[in-house]
Amino acid sequence: MEGAHPRVMQRLLETNLEQTPGYGNDPYCRQAKELIKKACGCEADSEALDVHFLVGGTQTNSTVIDALLRHHEGVLAAETAHINVHESGAIESCGHKVLTLPSHEGKVEAREVEAYISNFYADETYEHMVAPGMLYISFPTEYGTLYSRAELEELHRICRQADIPLYIDGARLGYGLASEACDFTLADLPSLCDIFYIGGTKVGALFGECVVARKGLLSHFFPLIKQHGALMAKGRLLGLQFATLFTDDLYLQAARHAVGLAMRLKQGFVSKGYRLFLDSPTNQQFVVLPNEVMDRLAQSSTFEVWGTRGTTHTTVRFVTSWATRPEDVEALINEL
Amino acid sequence: MEGAHPRVMQRLLETNLEQTPGYGNDPYCRQAKELIKKACGCEADSEALDVHFLVGGTQTNSTVIDALLRHHEGVLAAETAHINVHESGAIESCGHKVLTLPSHEGKVEAREVEAYISNFYADETYEHMVAPGMLYISFPTEYGTLYSRAELEELHRICRQADIPLYIDGARLGYGLASEACDFTLADLPSLCDIFYIGGTKVGALFGECVVARKGLLSHFFPLIKQHGALMAKGRLLGLQFATLFTDDLYLQAARHAVGLAMRLKQGFVSKGYRLFLDSPTNQQFVVLPNEVMDRLAQSSTFEVWGTRGTTHTTVRFVTSWATRPEDVEALINEL
Amino acid sequence: MEGAHPRVMQRLLETNLEQTPGYGNDPYCRQAKELIKKACGCEADSEALDVHFLVGGTQTNSTVIDALLRHHEGVLAAETAHINVHESGAIESCGHKVLTLPSHEGKVEAREVEAYISNFYADETYEHMVAPGMLYISFPTEYGTLYSRAELEELHRICRQADIPLYIDGARLGYGLASEACDFTLADLPSLCDIFYIGGTKVGALFGECVVARKGLLSHFFPLIKQHGALMAKGRLLGLQFATLFTDDLYLQAARHAVGLAMRLKQGFVSKGYRLFLDSPTNQQFVVLPNEVMDRLAQSSTFEVWGTRGTTHTTVRFVTSWATRPEDVEALINEL
Amino acid sequence: MEGAHPRVMQRLLETNLEQTPGYGNDPYCRQAKELIKKACGCEADSEALDVHFLVGGTQTNSTVIDALLRHHEGVLAAETAHINVHESGAIESCGHKVLTLPSHEGKVEAREVEAYISNFYADETYEHMVAPGMLYISFPTEYGTLYSRAELEELHRICRQADIPLYIDGARLGYGLASEACDFTLADLPSLCDIFYIGGTKVGALFGECVVARKGLLSHFFPLIKQHGALMAKGRLLGLQFATLFTDDLYLQAARHAVGLAMRLKQGFVSKGYRLFLDSPTNQQFVVLPNEVMDRLAQSSTFEVWGTRGTTHTTVRFVTSWATRPEDVEALINEL
Repeated sequence: MEGAHPRVMQRLLETNLEQTPGYGNDPYCRQAKELIKKACGCEADSEALDVHFLVGGTQTNSTVIDALLRHHEGVLAAETAHINVHESGAIESCGHKVLTLPSHEGKVEAREVEAYISNFYADETYEHMVAPGMLYISFPTEYGTLYSRAELEELHRICRQADIPLYIDGARLGYGLASEACDFTLADLPSLCDIFYIGGTKVGALFGECVVARKGLLSHFFPLIKQHGALMAKGRLLGLQFATLFTDDLYLQAARHAVGLAMRLKQGFVSKGYRLFLDSPTNQQFVVLPNEVMDRLAQSSTFEVWGTRGTTHTTVRFVTSWATRPEDVEALINEL
Repeated sequence: MEGAHPRVMQRLLETNLEQTPGYGNDPYCRQAKELIKKACGCEADSEALDVHFLVGGTQTNSTVIDALLRHHEGVLAAETAHINVHESGAIESCGHKVLTLPSHEGKVEAREVEAYISNFYADETYEHMVAPGMLYISFPTEYGTLYSRAELEELHRICRQADIPLYIDGARLGYGLASEACDFTLADLPSLCDIFYIGGTKVGALFGECVVARKGLLSHFFPLIKQHGALMAKGRLLGLQFATLFTDDLYLQAARHAVGLAMRLKQGFVSKGYRLFLDSPTNQQFVVLPNEVMDRLAQSSTFEVWGTRGTTHTTVRFVTSWATRPEDVEALINEL
Repeated sequence: MEGAHPRVMQRLLETNLEQTPGYGNDPYCRQAKELIKKACGCEADSEALDVHFLVGGTQTNSTVIDALLRHHEGVLAAETAHINVHESGAIESCGHKVLTLPSHEGKVEAREVEAYISNFYADETYEHMVAPGMLYISFPTEYGTLYSRAELEELHRICRQADIPLYIDGARLGYGLASEACDFTLADLPSLCDIFYIGGTKVGALFGECVVARKGLLSHFFPLIKQHGALMAKGRLLGLQFATLFTDDLYLQAARHAVGLAMRLKQGFVSKGYRLFLDSPTNQQFVVLPNEVMDRLAQSSTFEVWGTRGTTHTTVRFVTSWATRPEDVEALINEL
Repeated sequence: MEGAHPRVMQRLLETNLEQTPGYGNDPYCRQAKELIKKACGCEADSEALDVHFLVGGTQTNSTVIDALLRHHEGVLAAETAHINVHESGAIESCGHKVLTLPSHEGKVEAREVEAYISNFYADETYEHMVAPGMLYISFPTEYGTLYSRAELEELHRICRQADIPLYIDGARLGYGLASEACDFTLADLPSLCDIFYIGGTKVGALFGECVVARKGLLSHFFPLIKQHGALMAKGRLLGLQFATLFTDDLYLQAARHAVGLAMRLKQGFVSKGYRLFLDSPTNQQFVVLPNEVMDRLAQSSTFEVWGTRGTTHTTVRFVTSWATRPEDVEALINEL
């Protein structure tokens, strides 16, 4: 885990002594919003999209979900979803249930979403149950996998039909968009869902996430951000970072670097005969290693045990980033 | 759904014009607590148990669970548990996650509880996850099934080992204790778990649930009951009803009546060749009916579709109570 | 604290063995809703009003307020309001702040409400503050006092202007409507506010409160009632009681009885030279007693110390009800 | 509002490409904790204090308060407290009531705290009320004022007697400790309260707050931080900044710079005949300006209207920081 992309650091340094209004009312936040609207396929001054900056991923998810759901509603999500597993109950602490769907390598399937909703309303006792009030998916998923454009369109169609918003957790959005397996661009995303966030923390920023929502979906979101402790006093730090990332295509360039090295790493594992846990087209690679290999690699590389250690083999996760060096990837492959 | 057992109504009428202090500080509540402590195998003035009265089941579950869990903890429960399915998200609205276990005809299995807990702490990221903070089971379950004494002992052992309380939702407790399949008595229950409630609403009272907890488990429970809107102004109504139900063994007698008729009903279905959805030894009977039979019975009997209507067959639930008349059961069987 | 009015008990007894659907889907609830709509000046089948039954006052307040407020909003109320003082933090436990206004013998003043709202939006930092999202008043207040029709109209005008609902806590509504000081009727109330509840628990019922709201104000209220643990399984008990209270004017008759005796009691205190704490026109009377008189009366009468015992004098509260006997009032006066 | 002290920026830049574990398990966080323990008068490896890093002030307050309070408890605070006014209801959104005390230029008075607590328990109905569960004060207060050592000792004594923790919001802690009016040091603070935080955001850091608690007060705080969305993925950013601020006394030096200039500014206002709103010994200065002067100054200086604009005069707030330049202060004074 590195800091920020050098260009981001450079800009933070250059502007460090400037005095700007707090809480996001500054020229950098304005500039960032314009750049992001353009990257999302709109005019810089478009009113079609709302753009907000928050600090971290868990708080973004819980603030957005809290904003979208009514009391009697819960959020549909894969059982492996970050909000269901790794956010210490942040969603429930806001009063909402996570309604789980089967996970298919981290993805939900459209027909299972559709069946959940129709079964819910077919149940005579549904008014005693938590209603599906929105659909949460992550892109890339927690397993590095991607939805195709057609899959998103189908999910979005189902959500529109059920009159619930489709929300995409884009903590690693750049690594999805930068993958060769991705068949759409950021400019397509606003029409493929109702609200999503562009992850900064994992893609070149020191910290920061950028929520993009269709106009009118989020009302009174500013005080809710504050209430959730997600409002940054020096809000310009967020604007400045995103403005830098969305200048000269830095966001995607940084992500492409990471994904390229992840593909090289995957190829390395496969060519040396190791079994992939699943076939990820993004910057997270999951591979099943014999424990002795895992223990040996742990001395020179950084990776994570996925779940619990097995008796002979263990699944581990390797993650590349904008800062990963090609020579380190090659060295790792040579050690296999 | 009838009102209350005639003896309960009689007592409400006899005492109607008495003036007593509110909120449970009255002689009837005191008397009921003494009778219940005795029924639970203690002296009437025992300090080993805390006894509290609340109005309804959902509020009892959410108040107890809210009292027992700390912020970072959730409640383990079968995925079919009432708190997970049919309480409109009451547990989550208090900020807590329901951590689901597979349901085996409504029951959880000890080895799966144990595995959940040990896997949780074996996961390197467990501090980002919701910790299992208590175990919820229902007795009888939502499917009418029962745990044996040995099964409860094993669950309790696992809970003690994990230092979490075992809580039994006894909305239908009488119908479990009154079953021939039950191998323990109410007097055994305080040693088989940490806290449970004796359901009144479904077993002879107009309304009312009685929480029995080992001393020290619930601190500052009174204001929490109030905060949850579960404090009855005319608290004596609760005390009076429970005092009546625990005089002359009325609670169990009423339950035995219901279970006896449920067994007769089950026998009737089986002898006529219908398939049981599962073999329940208590007052709820689940049977798979051809749709045309179901539709015919619906004209003379009251039952509930369980889940959604099937294309040719549907599972339905029949429930008997202290008020069910034998002649109505016989008439139903004759119609099969 | 007595039970229920004998006619209510009689009806509960008569219908005790009837079987009806649960959760309020029964003929008695339907009938009660029709009677209440008529008492509120509408046709029995009017769609202009929504009517809901809940069990107790604290849960009614917290469920209604939770339903009406959005995340960033709080509820304006007198600092002496029940929701601010005596509900164990139930409103805050739902996530909402009580925004307090000065209390004038339990009442809020229109100009202070108006000033609060205008000062709020005049503050440059208002988006960091909890917005006034509704106004809560009680009628009669916690001090037995009443708003005049003109005062309610003025409060309602201010609320409409600010686009926030005016909610009246009518835990003791009958005792207000039955007072000679009241210059409007129940039929006027729907036009004087947006939502109110008709208290049953304190005015003749065993328990039960009836929420009356203008159409469209409360959406998805049923699951919220359930989530708040305020849904009664045997819902017909609520319908039956309110149907009885709103037949042959029983509700107001019972209240008039209580208010008449309270006026007699007030006159008694005044004629014997005791100082009233304030001049209440309803069933609660607050009087300042020398401690020796208070201690003597405590042996034969029931009243409540209001706040804390003073060194020489103490304020106490006497409450009459539908069940208070004239001879007991006279005996009390004779003892003064 | 500037960025971070240049030394902090320098260190962020130097370490930008280092790879460290996330979520605070890194050498910089360890080092910062040691330096802070030493600054707090303990050994670097002392077990007497717990040290945690969070991102911002509102989230620190709501996470700490949520951790300390039980369900039935609220937090005592001055009515002008940040948590009561300017955090968008963050405390209530966690379920807790702010119990307000009169504000004396932002401070609470010991005798009023004591009276609140004793009156609370003297009230017969206290179990229906929100119990005082902790005391929140800010140092410096929202008005720039300071508690003396003797005042803190007295508040702490009252809290210990009531068995509730005393929590100090130190968002601007440095500016208090750096004031000549402060009669204690950071090393005294752990014995003057139970828990406090050292504000970084407003005193030289880009962002970051450091909670210091006596051992055992906060249990399971890590998952709670996560649940509140206050856990920083790249936790080392917090450790690194605090390590820098607590090296070579930078934290206090930076604060002293600001306070010195604030004193110069105050002197300037007074010598020119302006009325101070109150006499603040720290970096916030409140002065009452004729509106025409205010409007003129607004063209060259940055300050904040305090509350609402008056008809002829308005109270405004000037804030200095580590980055304020002496020449700007002099220029402002010259303009008066």
